[in-house]
Amino acid sequence: MAYGAPMSSSEKIWTAGLIVIGDEILSGRTHDKNISQVASWLQVQGIRLAEVRVVPDVVEKIVEAVNTLRSENDYLFTTGGIGPTHDDITVDAVALALGVEVIIHPTARGILERYYADKGGLNEGRLRMARVPEGAELIPNRMSGAPGIKLGNVHLMAGVPHITAGMLDALTGTLEGGAPLLSETVGCWVAESEVAHLLFEVEQGHENCQIGSYPFFRDGKVGANFVIRSTSEDVLRSCVDTLSDGLATAGYDFTPGGI
Amino acid sequence: MAYGAPMSSSEKIWTAGLIVIGDEILSGRTHDKNISQVASWLQVQGIRLAEVRVVPDVVEKIVEAVNTLRSENDYLFTTGGIGPTHDDITVDAVALALGVEVIIHPTARGILERYYADKGGLNEGRLRMARVPEGAELIPNRMSGAPGIKLGNVHLMAGVPHITAGMLDALTGTLEGGAPLLSETVGCWVAESEVAHLLFEVEQGHENCQIGSYPFFRDGKVGANFVIRSTSEDVLRSCVDTLSDGLATAGYDFTPGGI
Repeated sequence: MAYGAPMSSSEKIWTAGLIVIGDEILSGRTHDKNISQVASWLQVQGIRLAEVRVVPDVVEKIVEAVNTLRSENDYLFTTGGIGPTHDDITVDAVALALGVEVIIHPTARGILERYYADKGGLNEGRLRMARVPEGAELIPNRMSGAPGIKLGNVHLMAGVPHITAGMLDALTGTLEGGAPLLSETVGCWVAESEVAHLLFEVEQGHENCQIGSYPFFRDGKVGANFVIRSTSEDVLRSCVDTLSDGLATAGYDFTPGGI
Repeated sequence: MAYGAPMSSSEKIWTAGLIVIGDEILSGRTHDKNISQVASWLQVQGIRLAEVRVVPDVVEKIVEAVNTLRSENDYLFTTGGIGPTHDDITVDAVALALGVEVIIHPTARGILERYYADKGGLNEGRLRMARVPEGAELIPNRMSGAPGIKLGNVHLMAGVPHITAGMLDALTGTLEGGAPLLSETVGCWVAESEVAHLLFEVEQGHENCQIGSYPFFRDGKVGANFVIRSTSEDVLRSCVDTLSDGLATAGYDFTPGGI
């Protein structure tokens, strides 16, 4: 069963889009760490990451991605471009996308004034970090003063991964979601191409269950981890058991929990 | 100057889109390594990565992303979904997007027959890896037999990073591009918010040059690396010198090459 499809007909699937904003990712200079961080966090909230777009620091590119992904999903998250420098244009782009003005948020200004009180005080660049689309709330940032921003279903977060982590932490439990997607891994020293048909059959035999196959090459041998996902613990268990039995019957040793 | 804008009016900017295909990235299970790998490789080819989309293993999502990004860019690359299992649907989706049939490529079939000759031979799953959109050429894969696929400006590559690397290697020098983007880094133990205005002014003063600011927090101190990019070595040099002078004048030690 495909990842984007509903897992059961009765249950709403909550989805999110993520926009990673920044030339540094597209140039290859910075290795993105936010995609997997946001993805893992969303799983625990019972929200599925449906699509990610990485776009440059160009207003119209951000606007287009914001408007597409916020309308296609229950939630939209962005990372990057909310700092103090000239290339930090996320707030302006999101305000444009939402058709609102950019204002100085009084609470954010106060936070920054206190944060920079013994660091030379506010200047033009630092004050940029108090700018928000009109109507926005703040997302607390324990790490570095400058808050994240929430407006409607759009959440603007920092690009620096440990600051993003703090903002996700502040949002934990505040967003409505569905049952979290559970997963279990079965590892096997087998070329995935030898058991492709088995994987297909086991998945077909279990509604509300997906099997992903992740091959690797290690210590001179090929193997694969099979990741079984379901929102139902019972279905997950049954699918894992059926797959494990199938691997054993075909003569392969398998490793519960993955290799 | 924004990343997506032309660096000089006379020179064509070659661009590429990248689609990372796979539930494992969107679930957070697998940390993507292909975005930065493809991005860095493209820089050397003189091609700019303009956008990345990460999409699930769902045909219509892949089709939509393929048709958008292949028409907006000179080149399109995909990673993932060309293996032997049921969740490998990239070839089918790309064929649908391009309006062609899926066929078994005779050369690919031959490669796989030889590769699997002493590994149990071809089976249904393995034969899937010889399927290509009609009219496609192969991209050699020294690592694991199954080739990548090239059709028009679309390049389908493996998801496993070291196999992707081999395919990129095979494509090196075969794609027309512009002058490669050169970059130089200047590091400084300064809060970027203290020099935001300087960065803006130096960038404004240099056509065909961008400055990115990448803050960090290390050993209890804040700092930033400023990455200057240009396709012209002379402009790059002048911009680096002006920025370095500006930092020194403002009383900051800077580190050529970055911190």
